[in-house]
Amino acid sequence: MTGINDRNTAIVDTETAAAATAAGNAMHELLRELLPLPRSITGDGVRQTLAALHMRLPLTTSEIPSGTAVFDWTVPDEWHIEDAYIADMSGRRLVDFHASALHVVGYSTPVDATYSRDELEPHLHSLPDQPDLIPYRTAYYAPSWGFCLSHRVRESLGTGPFRVVIRSRLAPGHLTLAEAVIPGATDDEVLLFAHDCHPALANDNLSGVLVATWVGQHLRTRRTRYTYRIVFAPATIGSITWLAHRRDVLPRIRHGLVLSLLGGPGRFHYKLTREGTRPIDRAAWHVVHATDAAATRLPFSPWGYDERQFGSPGIDLPMGRLTRTPNGAFPEYHTSADDATLVTAAQLGESWLTVLRILDVLERDATYVNLAPYGEPQLGRRGLYRTTGGHQHIPERQLALLWMLNQSDGRESVLGIAERAELPFAVLADAATDLEAVGLLRRQTDRAERVVSLSAPAPL
Amino acid sequence: MTGINDRNTAIVDTETAAAATAAGNAMHELLRELLPLPRSITGDGVRQTLAALHMRLPLTTSEIPSGTAVFDWTVPDEWHIEDAYIADMSGRRLVDFHASALHVVGYSTPVDATYSRDELEPHLHSLPDQPDLIPYRTAYYAPSWGFCLSHRVRESLGTGPFRVVIRSRLAPGHLTLAEAVIPGATDDEVLLFAHDCHPALANDNLSGVLVATWVGQHLRTRRTRYTYRIVFAPATIGSITWLAHRRDVLPRIRHGLVLSLLGGPGRFHYKLTREGTRPIDRAAWHVVHATDAAATRLPFSPWGYDERQFGSPGIDLPMGRLTRTPNGAFPEYHTSADDATLVTAAQLGESWLTVLRILDVLERDATYVNLAPYGEPQLGRRGLYRTTGGHQHIPERQLALLWMLNQSDGRESVLGIAERAELPFAVLADAATDLEAVGLLRRQTDRAERVVSLSAPAPL
Amino acid sequence: MTGINDRNTAIVDTETAAAATAAGNAMHELLRELLPLPRSITGDGVRQTLAALHMRLPLTTSEIPSGTAVFDWTVPDEWHIEDAYIADMSGRRLVDFHASALHVVGYSTPVDATYSRDELEPHLHSLPDQPDLIPYRTAYYAPSWGFCLSHRVRESLGTGPFRVVIRSRLAPGHLTLAEAVIPGATDDEVLLFAHDCHPALANDNLSGVLVATWVGQHLRTRRTRYTYRIVFAPATIGSITWLAHRRDVLPRIRHGLVLSLLGGPGRFHYKLTREGTRPIDRAAWHVVHATDAAATRLPFSPWGYDERQFGSPGIDLPMGRLTRTPNGAFPEYHTSADDATLVTAAQLGESWLTVLRILDVLERDATYVNLAPYGEPQLGRRGLYRTTGGHQHIPERQLALLWMLNQSDGRESVLGIAERAELPFAVLADAATDLEAVGLLRRQTDRAERVVSLSAPAPL
Repeated sequence: MTGINDRNTAIVDTETAAAATAAGNAMHELLRELLPLPRSITGDGVRQTLAALHMRLPLTTSEIPSGTAVFDWTVPDEWHIEDAYIADMSGRRLVDFHASALHVVGYSTPVDATYSRDELEPHLHSLPDQPDLIPYRTAYYAPSWGFCLSHRVRESLGTGPFRVVIRSRLAPGHLTLAEAVIPGATDDEVLLFAHDCHPALANDNLSGVLVATWVGQHLRTRRTRYTYRIVFAPATIGSITWLAHRRDVLPRIRHGLVLSLLGGPGRFHYKLTREGTRPIDRAAWHVVHATDAAATRLPFSPWGYDERQFGSPGIDLPMGRLTRTPNGAFPEYHTSADDATLVTAAQLGESWLTVLRILDVLERDATYVNLAPYGEPQLGRRGLYRTTGGHQHIPERQLALLWMLNQSDGRESVLGIAERAELPFAVLADAATDLEAVGLLRRQTDRAERVVSLSAPAPL
Repeated sequence: MTGINDRNTAIVDTETAAAATAAGNAMHELLRELLPLPRSITGDGVRQTLAALHMRLPLTTSEIPSGTAVFDWTVPDEWHIEDAYIADMSGRRLVDFHASALHVVGYSTPVDATYSRDELEPHLHSLPDQPDLIPYRTAYYAPSWGFCLSHRVRESLGTGPFRVVIRSRLAPGHLTLAEAVIPGATDDEVLLFAHDCHPALANDNLSGVLVATWVGQHLRTRRTRYTYRIVFAPATIGSITWLAHRRDVLPRIRHGLVLSLLGGPGRFHYKLTREGTRPIDRAAWHVVHATDAAATRLPFSPWGYDERQFGSPGIDLPMGRLTRTPNGAFPEYHTSADDATLVTAAQLGESWLTVLRILDVLERDATYVNLAPYGEPQLGRRGLYRTTGGHQHIPERQLALLWMLNQSDGRESVLGIAERAELPFAVLADAATDLEAVGLLRRQTDRAERVVSLSAPAPL
Repeated sequence: MTGINDRNTAIVDTETAAAATAAGNAMHELLRELLPLPRSITGDGVRQTLAALHMRLPLTTSEIPSGTAVFDWTVPDEWHIEDAYIADMSGRRLVDFHASALHVVGYSTPVDATYSRDELEPHLHSLPDQPDLIPYRTAYYAPSWGFCLSHRVRESLGTGPFRVVIRSRLAPGHLTLAEAVIPGATDDEVLLFAHDCHPALANDNLSGVLVATWVGQHLRTRRTRYTYRIVFAPATIGSITWLAHRRDVLPRIRHGLVLSLLGGPGRFHYKLTREGTRPIDRAAWHVVHATDAAATRLPFSPWGYDERQFGSPGIDLPMGRLTRTPNGAFPEYHTSADDATLVTAAQLGESWLTVLRILDVLERDATYVNLAPYGEPQLGRRGLYRTTGGHQHIPERQLALLWMLNQSDGRESVLGIAERAELPFAVLADAATDLEAVGLLRRQTDRAERVVSLSAPAPL
């Protein structure tokens, strides 16, 4: 363990509120800058986004050619979009791509023609129940074109005829992947993944992209046990391409998180890995539950974000997913209302801190052995216990000392003790550090390395 | 497996509502015909009932002689009842067996005498809390006689004297067992059992007898994996006699259900096997719970119907029990109010369909292997996925495809996936069929045959 | 098993209510006598208490010299207290040890001086939220002195000066342990432990000391399977000293209970052993839960009473803890209101009976084998079943017979069957006795001795 996992490896500082505020503000500033870019699963919108991130966290990008076979899929042609509009015959734009990148269905083929209202109608997408919002729609794998618009605008369009223009290009090119690797003391990796293919939506998923970037920034300032790999790629085809492309990396991944929808309101929702019993499941749930007793733990399901791919047969990585209110469960989801007012700096900052706290558990979890078993050791003479007795309640700090001593027979790690004691991990980890300092505990092994040789106390 | 278990083996058709209605009507018609017969644990009432069933489902009957030792018991003498009444001295019948077979305590010994009211009183059974109803009572194993009557009639009897006549005969004869065997592709058997010994009660248990008969009728029209054995016998002594008599059959029984109280109102109650973790427990609970979230799963207990015998030490067959409102939990239980108005055609039809759905799970459950693992396969180019993306919700059908693909690594069967996905078994089984048709899944083994060789995807 | 575990070994009699009342009254009488004694972790207050107990239950005492190393601790000096007061300059006592032993902080060093109010203030302890009560405080391991007083008195003290006297002596001496051993048929032991170090508090823990004494009294009148060891010692240092002193005994302890807070109001709270799955956990919870469905099962935690030491690494004895309302959860806790009105004779008697019922489960639990498997045996011809059938409900007694027969395949003990059946242990144990008498059950082994050779019924 070469000393890296010493008591100084905590990656969450004591003064966290100010740091979270600062990070939240900086993320929100960049969010407003990146929001209008016409991201898609390929194309320059993604490249511009990655270039901006690269200023905060050095990224390595890979360009995968169209036509490349990736497992059951093929990398599609690259899509470029320059302009798109529906105009009346006077040239007045009724629906304009430059007003919102959402207006054009992703991967629309080029159009330049005049249509009657009846002809146009099958190409329009709106939300009758949310008549002021523009929906988000794509058509990656079946050549077609369309416009998304608010239902109010749709109702006011009139009978036409309309001039309809989409200046797009769909041709062989590349799909862009990006990643940052932050080396730790070991080759064991933690993977953080955020999809980067949605245009003009703030929570889905600039929030995840930004939180991942700022987490990476922070990790670069710390000495860690794990090596961290932060990956940005389009949803589905992107994660599949990355998995096919970097299969050399997969065996080293010990834990991982899909990061998405981390800027909106609502409590945290942690979605379990496919197995549901991985260390990341315990660590993430412990942190979000200790922070907020009303947090939700979602079962795994093969629907949602890229945890679908990471949790597919044959891949089966220990990847959980952290969101706030999840996909489909808030009214702004996949509409123009998912904007820079739905996402706040405070929510981004809190999400950033929560991810760091989860990683802190992974970094610091370990098993200890009580070096003074057979009854409680006398903490008072070591300065670890108050000197008068008889009080009605015991401070959390002293309870943590007793729990660490009681449970440290080499079987249970700090995380397991925190779960049993219903105390925050950090309080127990700090108690362990102090008990180690006075010679009452000895770190036995990091959790990840623990195999079967449990050293219980010697027989009496 | 010889092809029998192909995608055409579903035993529940798509058009079920009409079939259930037709079956319910037919069952209720026969119920009204059979209701008055003086069934008991032996005698001609049972034989007449079986003869009527034989017209719908060919039955083999066995006559077991009185005095035959069956485990700890002995087959009792056969009881015949021709007439029974309490009359006043003018000959007017105050209580008359021909008005209801319930009026005479089952296995009453012959009587022909005059009694005062005081002498008669110890032989009378009524229900003060339900003064209009005739209770059902028996005295199989302690020679005695008695009358059951409504409390109102009892109160109006007057002081007597009374002429009391029971024209019964209790003498060596036989106990009658009946069964139908419907062969399937394998010798593995599913046992359905219904007790047939209660006179003049509709729900308890003509309902179970009729549902079993109609299930048998339906199974004869299908090619099944399992061989089905449908047994009719008196409660307790009958199931014990059958177990002793057919012990050659027991090792082949893979699953089973006791069918009773299936015609009255109320939600389904599935009572677990003695072990509580048998495949029938999962299949039956999945079906009743998917049909009705307010269904009840009862723990095993050695009280109730013949699951007591099937779940006794040394026998321990995987027999669950399906009822609607269970024994003792509805006010008409074991009274003259358990009649052809309590039992409806619709309730009988729904019960019939529910039993078939449970058997359908047993028949069709299997494990599959995903032939395109490593990420999701591209369903769109195979015509199995909608072509535009971004929608807020996913149809159940598409979710079922994703679940089958995600979980088919050879460990979990369709039933297990249905439980985890909280989707109906049939939706997942149909998805499996379609995925097999396009080459994305391969059936690995039927659940029942699965041993230990799990074929996970080959290493990446 | 030498016959000791026959059906006559029940240690709870049928007529329990009267016995509990008598025991409760006798305990409360002694409680009032012992309450004022100035108990502490050493000294004559404890010795006088033990001498009074010795009149009811013969005790062996051990005097452990100050300075003896006991695991991580050292036996402290012995403390004697003769007098302590705060007086005004006229000599009028404002706070007087002779009014309540609580007034002096335990282990106070001697004082004899005049103090201003400001000088006195840091040595005073009171409860602003409970202004009429005197708190209980100690300072065993950091030399200091202090007074506990009601907040009202503190507020009325005036500005002084005060004459302050504590006539105590803190010098090498002994720590006193006491135990009673009640031999049973085997060397397997049940340990009952009650701390005896609190002065002038009734519920904490004269109640536990008295209940343990009266349980011991009762056990001396019975032939038992287990040997019972009842230990009285000061909390923490006392249990640690006992563990170090009697480590020869520890391997024989099969079950145990810490007894405390058994005289106050409130429902029973059973605190699980460190493992949480020991036989005592099941036995104790079954009894308190069967007696009172609103009883509480507390998880283990390393905070509370001496279960902290018994459940420490390397010791890890199967010791649960029985209290009524637990420490810190009632307003009188560690104050002068924990007196002989808070503790009632009825509550003491009920606690005594509950402990005996738990021990009765340990004594009588056993596994049985059904000698007439394959269906239910015919109970009617053995006089164990009512003779008419058809009744709506079954008496608890007959249900117990059916449960014992159904589950007695050698795997499950009476306690396990009671848990599954949700019937009281005693009802099932009595049913087992009756079934054994008619040759339907054979006792296979006592639970404690059961290893792996399960005798299931022979194959059919």
